[in-house]
Amino acid sequence: MYTTDLSEEQVSALRVNKDRLAKDLHYSCQWGAGIRWGDGSTDTGMQRLALSDEDKKVRDWFIETTTNLKCRVTVDEMGNIFAVRPGRRKDVPATFIGSHLDTQPTGGRYDGILGVLSGIETLKVMEEMGLETEGGVGVVNWTNEEGARFPVSMVSSGVWAECIPLERAHGLKEVPTVASLSTAASAPETMKSALEKIKYLGPVPCSYKETPMAAHFELHIEQGPHLVSAGQRVGVVTAVQAYRWYHIDVIGRDTHTGTTAFQHRADALFASARMMVRAREVADSHGCLASVGIIEAKPGSINTVPGLVSFSFDIRAPETELVTIVEADLRKEFDLIAAEEGKGIGKPCRVEWRLDFDSPAVKFHQDCIECVQQSAEAVVADANVPDSKSLVRTIMSGAGHDSVFTSKRVPTSMIFIPCKDGLSHHPEEFSTAEDCATGASVVLQAVVRYDRKRFA
Amino acid sequence: MYTTDLSEEQVSALRVNKDRLAKDLHYSCQWGAGIRWGDGSTDTGMQRLALSDEDKKVRDWFIETTTNLKCRVTVDEMGNIFAVRPGRRKDVPATFIGSHLDTQPTGGRYDGILGVLSGIETLKVMEEMGLETEGGVGVVNWTNEEGARFPVSMVSSGVWAECIPLERAHGLKEVPTVASLSTAASAPETMKSALEKIKYLGPVPCSYKETPMAAHFELHIEQGPHLVSAGQRVGVVTAVQAYRWYHIDVIGRDTHTGTTAFQHRADALFASARMMVRAREVADSHGCLASVGIIEAKPGSINTVPGLVSFSFDIRAPETELVTIVEADLRKEFDLIAAEEGKGIGKPCRVEWRLDFDSPAVKFHQDCIECVQQSAEAVVADANVPDSKSLVRTIMSGAGHDSVFTSKRVPTSMIFIPCKDGLSHHPEEFSTAEDCATGASVVLQAVVRYDRKRFA
Repeated sequence: MYTTDLSEEQVSALRVNKDRLAKDLHYSCQWGAGIRWGDGSTDTGMQRLALSDEDKKVRDWFIETTTNLKCRVTVDEMGNIFAVRPGRRKDVPATFIGSHLDTQPTGGRYDGILGVLSGIETLKVMEEMGLETEGGVGVVNWTNEEGARFPVSMVSSGVWAECIPLERAHGLKEVPTVASLSTAASAPETMKSALEKIKYLGPVPCSYKETPMAAHFELHIEQGPHLVSAGQRVGVVTAVQAYRWYHIDVIGRDTHTGTTAFQHRADALFASARMMVRAREVADSHGCLASVGIIEAKPGSINTVPGLVSFSFDIRAPETELVTIVEADLRKEFDLIAAEEGKGIGKPCRVEWRLDFDSPAVKFHQDCIECVQQSAEAVVADANVPDSKSLVRTIMSGAGHDSVFTSKRVPTSMIFIPCKDGLSHHPEEFSTAEDCATGASVVLQAVVRYDRKRFA
Repeated sequence: MYTTDLSEEQVSALRVNKDRLAKDLHYSCQWGAGIRWGDGSTDTGMQRLALSDEDKKVRDWFIETTTNLKCRVTVDEMGNIFAVRPGRRKDVPATFIGSHLDTQPTGGRYDGILGVLSGIETLKVMEEMGLETEGGVGVVNWTNEEGARFPVSMVSSGVWAECIPLERAHGLKEVPTVASLSTAASAPETMKSALEKIKYLGPVPCSYKETPMAAHFELHIEQGPHLVSAGQRVGVVTAVQAYRWYHIDVIGRDTHTGTTAFQHRADALFASARMMVRAREVADSHGCLASVGIIEAKPGSINTVPGLVSFSFDIRAPETELVTIVEADLRKEFDLIAAEEGKGIGKPCRVEWRLDFDSPAVKFHQDCIECVQQSAEAVVADANVPDSKSLVRTIMSGAGHDSVFTSKRVPTSMIFIPCKDGLSHHPEEFSTAEDCATGASVVLQAVVRYDRKRFA
C-alpha cells in the first residue's frame, strides 16, 4: 500500500496502538528511572542525563529497535542518532519525527521521550500495515536537548543546523551541580569525552547537509496549563517564544559575618537576592519570564559573607524584542542594586553578564502546521462530541525544542498534548496513555499527509 | 629570675621582639599561602583549611618549635596541641595562651595565627630572659576553629570544654563547597578520618579535666572597624556577642522555567531570595546581624525552577535574648514568604529550620580582664602621648573564638588589636608588625601578671 494511493478518509482513520506505545515508553524508562512519587510500577520520574550510562543503554535499545524495523541507522559527531525507514524514492530526504531521550536530573517520563517513542510507534504502524511512503520516514534522537548536563540546550540540533560550532559543543563541560550526580564521572567530562566514553561519537559530520531532512515533526507534552485547563486535546504549535540564557557574576568582598556591620559589607549574595526579587517584578511587568536555576556562592563558608556569586539567568518572551527590553531594564536595575551594596566602604559590588545562549522567537512552517492541524482534527473526531474541532487549538511553545533548530533549515512543526497540572521538569510529570496515543496518531497522520503533499 | 620577684615596673617593661614575631608569623604562613593581593613577599592571604596537608605541616612546625623551647607537647583526640613550658610548681595547671592555625578558604595571615604566634613569642622572651614562672605557661593550637572545613566553629575547644560531644565532632563531614578545594580529598572526609589521615588523632582524651588550664588568654585582630577608626591600639575584650547557626531548607517544586507562569511556581530560590532580603531588614531593626554564607539550589539546572534550596543562616546579637527574638520574628516572616510562593497551585513552599550551633553571649573573667587592662595600659605608654590610656578601650567581640569555650571552664579574656579596614576572612586581612607586637607584649605581661596574682 502506498501513501499516495490512500483516500483522505483512509488517512484520517490512521491510528497508533495506544497500549503498545505506552508499553514501549515505560519499557524505555527502565534506564534512568528516577524519583518515586507513587506506588505504581511506572510512578517514578527520570534521571537520564545526556551521555550517561543510562543514556547509552536507551540509545542501544533505540538502535536495536529501529534496526529491527528495517531502518538504516547513522550516528553523527554529536551522537545524534538517525534511523530511516526507506521510502520508494531513494533520491529524496526522509520526513523526520524527532525529539530526545535525555532528561533533567529530576525529570519525568514524557518530556522528549514521548516524541521519540511516537516516531518508533509510527514506524511500527507502517510496518504492520505494509505502508510504503514515497520519501523515507526517519526518527531522530537528538543529544543533550535538555542542556542539563552540558549547559547549552538543543545543542546537537543546533550543530546539525550549523547554528552552533561543533568545537564549541564538543568543548562544553558538564555542570558541577549535575556532575555531582552518580551518573557523572569524578572529573568533569566535556561533551566530546562523554561521547567517546559511551562510544557515541559517530563518524557522520553533524550537519543538515550530511543528514538532510524533508521536514521535522515533534510531539511533546505542553509543559504548561493551557490544554489541560481548557479540556483540549491537541495543540498545533505555530511558534516558539524567544529566550536568552546568561551567566551572571556578582562580585563583592569576603568578610566576617560576625564582625561586619551591614553598612560595611559588599555582600554578593545579598545583592544577588535583591536582583532575583527585582528580576521577577520587571519581567512580569512586560509579560515575560525570568528565572534563576543555578546559583553558587563563594567562598562558601557559614561565617564568611560571600564575595562572589554566580547564577544562571533565563529570560523568555513571546517576541524577540521583548527579551532585549527586559535584559536592558535588568542590566540597569542590577547595576543600581550592586552600587548600593558596599557603597559604605567605597567598594560597591559589580555585576558581569555573559550571554550563553540566544534563541530568537520562531515561526513554524505553514505546510507542516497544516498537516498537523488536519491530522489533529481527524484524530479528535473520535471524541464524539458535537464540536470536536474545538478540542484542537493553535499554541505557542514556552520552551525551546530541537524543532527550533530544525525549523531554521527545513519545514517544521510540533504537536502538544496536555500534561497533568501543566507540570514538567519534575518527577511527577504525567500524560495519560490516551493523550499520548492521540498525539502519536497526529504525528503518524501528519507524516503521511506531508509525504502525500510532497509527491501529490 | 622568678615572676614573683619582679617589681611592678619590671613587669610593665616586658616587651616582645617585634621583628622576630613578624618573621616567625610569616614563616609559618609558607604552609597554605593563599590568594596574592600585592607585590610583597608576604602579600598573600591564607588558605589553610583545618587538617589539610598544609595544616599538618604548620602543626609539625609548631611542635618542633615549642619542643625546642623546652615545652612538653601533648595532642588530644581532637588534634588540639598543648605545649607547656614547666613552671616552678608541678602541682598546678599552666596559664595558657591559645588560638588556631587553621584559616578560612579565602582567609588572611592574622586571624588565629597571630594568637598562636604570640604564645610562641612569649615563650621565646621568657627563655631569653631566663624567666621562671610559678605555674607553667602553655600555648595551645585549637583544631578547626573556623568551622570552614568542618561546619562547627570552635568545635575542638567545645569538645575540650565538654560542651560538644566527641562523637558529634568526630562525625562532622567536610562542607562540599570547601571540599572542592584541592586541599580536600575526592570523597568527603569526616573530622575523625581527616585527623587520622594527617596523624593528629592524639591519645589524650579531649577534656578540660585531662588537660586543665589555670587561665586562657587569646590575642586576636579585632575583625571590625572600632579600634582602627578611633586610632586606638588595644581592645580589652570583656564579652562575646551571642550567635546561632542554622541550616535552612526551603522546599518548593521543580518545574520548567520556560513554560511555567510566575503564579504557577513554587520557586524555592525566589522564596529564599525574598527571605535573605527580609532577614537583613529584620535583624537590622533589632541592631543584630543575619547572614547567609552557603547556598545550594537543586536540581541545579538552567531551565528548571529549583524545588529545593538549602542555606546556612547566622544570627548575631549583643545579648542572647536578642538572637531568640530575631529568630522568632524571622520564623514567622519566612513562613509568610513561603506561603505566598506556590499558593497559585495550592502547593506553597515550606521552610524547615535546623539549629546547628548555639553560642550564648559570654562575659569574660574579671581577673583576666584586669591583667589585660593593666598590661595594655603599660604597653601603650610607649606611644608617648599625653593620655596614652585613651589608646586602650574595652570592647565586645563580634566573632566567636576558642576563648568562648575556655571561658566556660577557666578564667579567660582576650586582647584585640586593630586591623586594616576592620577586614578579616579575606586575603587582604592585615595588621602592622607594630600592632602585632603591641598585642603580643600585652599577652606576655598578662600571663606574667596572672601568674603573680595566683601565687602572690
